[in-house]
Amino acid sequence: MEDLFTLGKEILASQPFSVLIGAELLSFSQGYAELKIPIRPELKQQHGFVHGGVISYAVDNTLTFAGGSVLGTSVTTSEFKINYLRPAIGDFLVARAAVIHAGKSQAVCRCDVFVSKDGKESLCATSQGTITMLGQSSNTKA
Amino acid sequence: MEDLFTLGKEILASQPFSVLIGAELLSFSQGYAELKIPIRPELKQQHGFVHGGVISYAVDNTLTFAGGSVLGTSVTTSEFKINYLRPAIGDFLVARAAVIHAGKSQAVCRCDVFVSKDGKESLCATSQGTITMLGQSSNTKA
Amino acid sequence: MEDLFTLGKEILASQPFSVLIGAELLSFSQGYAELKIPIRPELKQQHGFVHGGVISYAVDNTLTFAGGSVLGTSVTTSEFKINYLRPAIGDFLVARAAVIHAGKSQAVCRCDVFVSKDGKESLCATSQGTITMLGQSSNTKA
Amino acid sequence: MEDLFTLGKEILASQPFSVLIGAELLSFSQGYAELKIPIRPELKQQHGFVHGGVISYAVDNTLTFAGGSVLGTSVTTSEFKINYLRPAIGDFLVARAAVIHAGKSQAVCRCDVFVSKDGKESLCATSQGTITMLGQSSNTKA
Repeated sequence: MEDLFTLGKEILASQPFSVLIGAELLSFSQGYAELKIPIRPELKQQHGFVHGGVISYAVDNTLTFAGGSVLGTSVTTSEFKINYLRPAIGDFLVARAAVIHAGKSQAVCRCDVFVSKDGKESLCATSQGTITMLGQSSNTKA
Repeated sequence: MEDLFTLGKEILASQPFSVLIGAELLSFSQGYAELKIPIRPELKQQHGFVHGGVISYAVDNTLTFAGGSVLGTSVTTSEFKINYLRPAIGDFLVARAAVIHAGKSQAVCRCDVFVSKDGKESLCATSQGTITMLGQSSNTKA
Repeated sequence: MEDLFTLGKEILASQPFSVLIGAELLSFSQGYAELKIPIRPELKQQHGFVHGGVISYAVDNTLTFAGGSVLGTSVTTSEFKINYLRPAIGDFLVARAAVIHAGKSQAVCRCDVFVSKDGKESLCATSQGTITMLGQSSNTKA
Repeated sequence: MEDLFTLGKEILASQPFSVLIGAELLSFSQGYAELKIPIRPELKQQHGFVHGGVISYAVDNTLTFAGGSVLGTSVTTSEFKINYLRPAIGDFLVARAAVIHAGKSQAVCRCDVFVSKDGKESLCATSQGTITMLGQSSNTKA
């Protein structure tokens, strides 16, 4: 679906924080989104690993894209939960989110974040969360 | 505890991503941490609100500081859960985290994130998570 | 608010699983609910502690009551997150839930579960979750 | 692995609360566990659906079994997060949990709960959580 993918890239480009992070949309289709974040020194913590806040950004944004692909563009992340599995060291992160269940105004999605190093991927975080249509709730962040 | 506060500011300054975000440590004592993030255009999403990823960074880092204040500096966030409550529009964010329960190698902490606008604070996100000493588990991100 | 409390006790009595558990409503007012569960052998696991599933029941139900106190009786728990803090050994559990933020159709609530032994309370679990009005979403369990 | 399965059934039978619920172990192998709960009136809430507390019990216990299959029998659920997706109406629940990542003392697991009605399964809840070896942390419930 080239149109959805084009729309997704425009939305990502219109988010100043995503531009600051350097996020790129790899894939965006009905019920699925994939985000890539090249790892550079500014994204690290004091031990040289990718900062957990970068990984939680990836989760937040990729979940929202996945949910938005079925609910429309006017959505927000209501909540999510993340488990960090291993330190992220490598060349880039890839976050992959899929819709698990979609209702009229909410979608529950899952997102796994992988770190790619020398062409080999490792799972470094797993998460699940709820995406909500704006106007359906005042529990909204955007 | 000036020493702990000084140590905390050094740790924050040694995290390149925290420098990129512009986070400042307001308070750091046994069982408690407070982080401030001035809101600037680079931290926003497409509707002018603070990006959810900035708020999740604040949660991740403030939880880790709070847990580290009782477990030592070699800690990581194993997991957390965040609920976004309202869009963050204002002058700066303040994240306040406290230890709820500390064991030998783990601490469960809570973090509330407020947005301050014209001197008035509103709660914009609430979270809870687990901080783990490094070397106690291979579920580590840092 | 005696009327709300009376209504709450009727609702609890109409839940067969709450009757099986033996839950009692201690307090129910605008934005707040308190549930008591006497500890008896049937509620334990193999080491003599209260089973985690009893504690998660307490969280689920007390969160729903708290949310319902501000949203109306036709609500359900959309999601929650629980951290277990210590084994529950004692005479009875008390779960206390409060609304943190309420929107038009959702409320984010927090619930702490205490175990009381010989008149002394200890926090054994902490949780937060989202209560949603029925009909506002198809992500509903009831 | 018949031996692990036999051990699992013995553990389940030694949990009074699991006996009260009526849970049965369907499958138990390295990194995987499956629990069945026949739906009977005592497990319902006031609208005739399975009570959310029964589903959270299923999540708690099946996650613990999955984690225990790789960490040993002396484990506990440190924390979990559950999203309820649809009301559970039917003949029985099946909870399926798998280990996502195992470290030395912790395992992060995922659990999906399905309701089976007239031979057709529907996903009614999804969850993820952390299982911890006892003695590795004082954040333990059992």
